[in-house]
Amino acid sequence: MDELISLRDILRNFAKERDWDQFHSPKNLASALAVEASELLEPFQWLTEEQSRNLTPKQTLAVRGEVADVFIYLVRLADKLDIDLLEVARAKIAENAAKYPIEKSKGSSSKYSDL
Amino acid sequence: MDELISLRDILRNFAKERDWDQFHSPKNLASALAVEASELLEPFQWLTEEQSRNLTPKQTLAVRGEVADVFIYLVRLADKLDIDLLEVARAKIAENAAKYPIEKSKGSSSKYSDL
Amino acid sequence: MDELISLRDILRNFAKERDWDQFHSPKNLASALAVEASELLEPFQWLTEEQSRNLTPKQTLAVRGEVADVFIYLVRLADKLDIDLLEVARAKIAENAAKYPIEKSKGSSSKYSDL
Amino acid sequence: MDELISLRDILRNFAKERDWDQFHSPKNLASALAVEASELLEPFQWLTEEQSRNLTPKQTLAVRGEVADVFIYLVRLADKLDIDLLEVARAKIAENAAKYPIEKSKGSSSKYSDL
Repeated sequence: MDELISLRDILRNFAKERDWDQFHSPKNLASALAVEASELLEPFQWLTEEQSRNLTPKQTLAVRGEVADVFIYLVRLADKLDIDLLEVARAKIAENAAKYPIEKSKGSSSKYSDL
Repeated sequence: MDELISLRDILRNFAKERDWDQFHSPKNLASALAVEASELLEPFQWLTEEQSRNLTPKQTLAVRGEVADVFIYLVRLADKLDIDLLEVARAKIAENAAKYPIEKSKGSSSKYSDL
Repeated sequence: MDELISLRDILRNFAKERDWDQFHSPKNLASALAVEASELLEPFQWLTEEQSRNLTPKQTLAVRGEVADVFIYLVRLADKLDIDLLEVARAKIAENAAKYPIEKSKGSSSKYSDL
Repeated sequence: MDELISLRDILRNFAKERDWDQFHSPKNLASALAVEASELLEPFQWLTEEQSRNLTPKQTLAVRGEVADVFIYLVRLADKLDIDLLEVARAKIAENAAKYPIEKSKGSSSKYSDL
């Protein structure tokens, strides 16, 4: 958590020094996050699942940069909305545990075939 | 960082117990992440920027759940790709600092008008 | 409709000549479509709504190319899924007309504030 | 083309009758389009490519509705930006034909492995 708070503060300062808070409305940050998440999807779009498990060094490098962008905008958006990432993740995991009990979800993967 | 590693391990175990690793190829996780990022964008899409800075309690609650989903899939994807989120974020921030020096970026916001 | 069928056939032939059908599973085309839609969102992400109504010639040119990419993948995906774009659009409009009757939707814009 | 113009006019009228043009800035429509494209991706995210080629009737029905939403927002955004969908698609196909000549692209699928 200390590390996430430190990252949040570095990003907060980065924007402040550049007078970028005017651009960083939650609406705009949510757009930027969605755009970066799609950029992260892009290198995978024509790969087979198998290929995606065995990226080349060049692919890995590109993907690392996109993962960073997604993370940065997520931390930034959470800051603007006063959301504690670890707290909401834990709450969601508790919800999911109730929603997908092991005995019912194991093997059957009902989550993935409910359409 | 301890907290992120702990979250990664909880999610790793969650998937393992349910036999979900077969679904969690990087390709699929990148799709899920992009889908969740767009679900996070959805509540903002018709709001003005000003409204997005002042969410109602109901909107905030919905947004918190979506932020959690994005974070969870990001941690999961990073785990599968053996990426350290804090490390890549720091590397990217260093890159951005070189790319957008304060004196050139401040006020002019050239990043945002380069099209 | 004739024009849409003609476009569908041109794209079908384009892929066939290049042996690209192996990559064009509905799953992959849906990814590509989402990626292109986000590339179309990118030039708008830091603009105000007002600025987005008054693009510069350079911005317009970039946006035209992205609109084309979205349209092309949409036609391609619809072809693979045997979906008639005009038919499903008309069905959806009829649904929306029932869901958002003029007298209830006008002015109140309830669709946009239901969160 | 007549059919696309007719669809554009129906959607234009639909928004006008409900006073929704105030929400339909290009920025917002581009967000809505990206959100809908991700909703279209969602039912595919955990499927194998093979499964995505053989949707169940229930999956097909869900997918048809999402394809319609993407198409509707695309037509609406193109209208707001004064873009002729067929014209930009044809221009892009010509570009792509030059970029991916058959003899170089066939079999090698270099487009898909350039990372």
